[in-house]
Amino acid sequence: MVYLTRKEHFNAAHKLFKPEWTDEKNQEVFGKCANPNWHGHNYDLFITVKGVPNPETGFLIDLKELKTIILENVIDKLDHKNINLDVDFMKGKMASTEVLAIEIWNVLEPLINEAELHCVKLYETENNFVEYYG
Amino acid sequence: MVYLTRKEHFNAAHKLFKPEWTDEKNQEVFGKCANPNWHGHNYDLFITVKGVPNPETGFLIDLKELKTIILENVIDKLDHKNINLDVDFMKGKMASTEVLAIEIWNVLEPLINEAELHCVKLYETENNFVEYYG
Amino acid sequence: MVYLTRKEHFNAAHKLFKPEWTDEKNQEVFGKCANPNWHGHNYDLFITVKGVPNPETGFLIDLKELKTIILENVIDKLDHKNINLDVDFMKGKMASTEVLAIEIWNVLEPLINEAELHCVKLYETENNFVEYYG
Amino acid sequence: MVYLTRKEHFNAAHKLFKPEWTDEKNQEVFGKCANPNWHGHNYDLFITVKGVPNPETGFLIDLKELKTIILENVIDKLDHKNINLDVDFMKGKMASTEVLAIEIWNVLEPLINEAELHCVKLYETENNFVEYYG
Amino acid sequence: MVYLTRKEHFNAAHKLFKPEWTDEKNQEVFGKCANPNWHGHNYDLFITVKGVPNPETGFLIDLKELKTIILENVIDKLDHKNINLDVDFMKGKMASTEVLAIEIWNVLEPLINEAELHCVKLYETENNFVEYYG
Amino acid sequence: MVYLTRKEHFNAAHKLFKPEWTDEKNQEVFGKCANPNWHGHNYDLFITVKGVPNPETGFLIDLKELKTIILENVIDKLDHKNINLDVDFMKGKMASTEVLAIEIWNVLEPLINEAELHCVKLYETENNFVEYYG
Repeated sequence: MVYLTRKEHFNAAHKLFKPEWTDEKNQEVFGKCANPNWHGHNYDLFITVKGVPNPETGFLIDLKELKTIILENVIDKLDHKNINLDVDFMKGKMASTEVLAIEIWNVLEPLINEAELHCVKLYETENNFVEYYG
Repeated sequence: MVYLTRKEHFNAAHKLFKPEWTDEKNQEVFGKCANPNWHGHNYDLFITVKGVPNPETGFLIDLKELKTIILENVIDKLDHKNINLDVDFMKGKMASTEVLAIEIWNVLEPLINEAELHCVKLYETENNFVEYYG
Repeated sequence: MVYLTRKEHFNAAHKLFKPEWTDEKNQEVFGKCANPNWHGHNYDLFITVKGVPNPETGFLIDLKELKTIILENVIDKLDHKNINLDVDFMKGKMASTEVLAIEIWNVLEPLINEAELHCVKLYETENNFVEYYG
Repeated sequence: MVYLTRKEHFNAAHKLFKPEWTDEKNQEVFGKCANPNWHGHNYDLFITVKGVPNPETGFLIDLKELKTIILENVIDKLDHKNINLDVDFMKGKMASTEVLAIEIWNVLEPLINEAELHCVKLYETENNFVEYYG
Repeated sequence: MVYLTRKEHFNAAHKLFKPEWTDEKNQEVFGKCANPNWHGHNYDLFITVKGVPNPETGFLIDLKELKTIILENVIDKLDHKNINLDVDFMKGKMASTEVLAIEIWNVLEPLINEAELHCVKLYETENNFVEYYG
Repeated sequence: MVYLTRKEHFNAAHKLFKPEWTDEKNQEVFGKCANPNWHGHNYDLFITVKGVPNPETGFLIDLKELKTIILENVIDKLDHKNINLDVDFMKGKMASTEVLAIEIWNVLEPLINEAELHCVKLYETENNFVEYYG
């Protein structure tokens, strides 16, 4: 069993807030992340798949295909977008790093067949990141 | 003459667009940076000052004071904010990295007296950065 | 189950030596790390907690609270200090990265209640790091 | 149980191709990695060992010894070499990151006795890496 | 005057040798960089241009155009290639970082018109890099 | 004219204090950097030389020779040492980054003959660095 990781990145805006809460409550719980006019990040995304390398090619998975799946289904939907407003798979969800990592897993898991999805690791900043293993 | 650099960072939302242009024109000139619902970045800011170290302390400038000047006048105004909407010194200006670096210089230059401001270097992503020397 | 990691850092002095050994023996076993007048490092510390995100906030844990726990109980005691001489929870212990990571776990584990402590990862240099999972 | 990781690096040339395939087939499967005149990388190698630290020294393993084992048996054979042509333990094998990580494990596993080899992590670029746990 | 830098990268094979010298002389002068079967690197390339930002767009130069010029004329010719054998603008030249940086300047300088080329900075490894200002 | 930079690093202890000042005055001026029992850093050192590449080798300077000069005269004296107590060229001087960079210049400048020393750049942490050009 070998684990292969591909890194991609996207730049997006978001805010943390619950529409049913008052501004004061949002500010109290989410602090500066609740800024009404949004803020944003350069997100780094690490997708890890696992499996047995193909003895003929030495590849676990064709990296070009893995990259295409990630770009078309995740990066193109998030890059230079507003996570709360523009991203179909985040509609109605909290735009926290935890939830975003889980939803990226949910998008990718059915699409990766050559190998098995093992981990979605998502950096919001170089000081904070989340890992989800399904 | 010695050059001393302090790195700080902030996370902010912005978009590139001219209100007097049509959406099509904005899209054509600024591409995905014109997304109406904003996007954002983790900006890294490097402030370089120059001068002759104080022979008694070995310091060019008190780094704690330099840090306080940068935090109070630049970072606190930009971090977790919308550059186009929330930042007083960017009102009515294009929120490009070039313009933002110049305006950060304009804010800091009169405030740094112990040494001379030499350079504002601003990373929008790890692949794009701007330097301004006044 | 989601894993969330917060990175902090501290700058500290230490040396590796056993007081009951001769200088020659310390030098032989610990090499240049036994320099009697100390040396030091910029340590990077990654604290990983695990659990189920709160469905209301989308948070596994309040990052500001996690940060406060780490700063008050670990970083403030280690930063700009001598690990052998100044740090209460390292008194009488070898100041190796392995032992320091274990003792940081022992400090933090009882204090983190909102989620479960999963891993203490400690970089002594960019080329050497230790992970401890309890 | 503590996990200790040592990072080393090497610069090498390689290509991905099967001699029994036509150039067209190699190009189709391996893309630009099949360039007949080779290409190359700065590889970063992370070797992780695990075990219980020695209570006398606080060390899991003598890092100088671990470093020597890695340098003499892996780095010296790969650094500034052609992975397909110059490396004894890669003769007749595909020079993919997956296979190279597995073969580095096979070289190191019998040589590390003070602690147990846990993981070989190999970066081909900052965007692609492989982990192998035996 | 503002300076704007764009980072790109490429992975390539090369060796340092003079065909008119004996293997022994090449080995003596170039050391392990003279390995007959090549070695390779992940090169990082930083292209800096300078000028006055366009007051209408806030841009010094259209980054997409700058990126296209660099990709088509430099990266596509070097990436996954052998610098000594495959690259038209390096034919008959030493494949040192110094010479490569100068020749990249010579390729790009006539092609960048919107702003002025200021610097070509080329990393061969994270420990060695070259800057050329024309 | 080409500029070539070599990166090296060292791990050292130091403190900032003036023996003729009281502890209170040292604490007031130097803050936590005045901790009596020392603290330390992983320093990164960038040495830049400039000149015209040798047309025969394509080299500005033999990097192995430059590395040897830096290691023998700077790194070996600083690595795993106490900057205030153990380093001959820092005796009686403030152990600030500014002064250390200047003294490293003073050590290296007479020793580099093949090319001209251009800059000593010294990182104390990833957030603070000093440049000295003679």
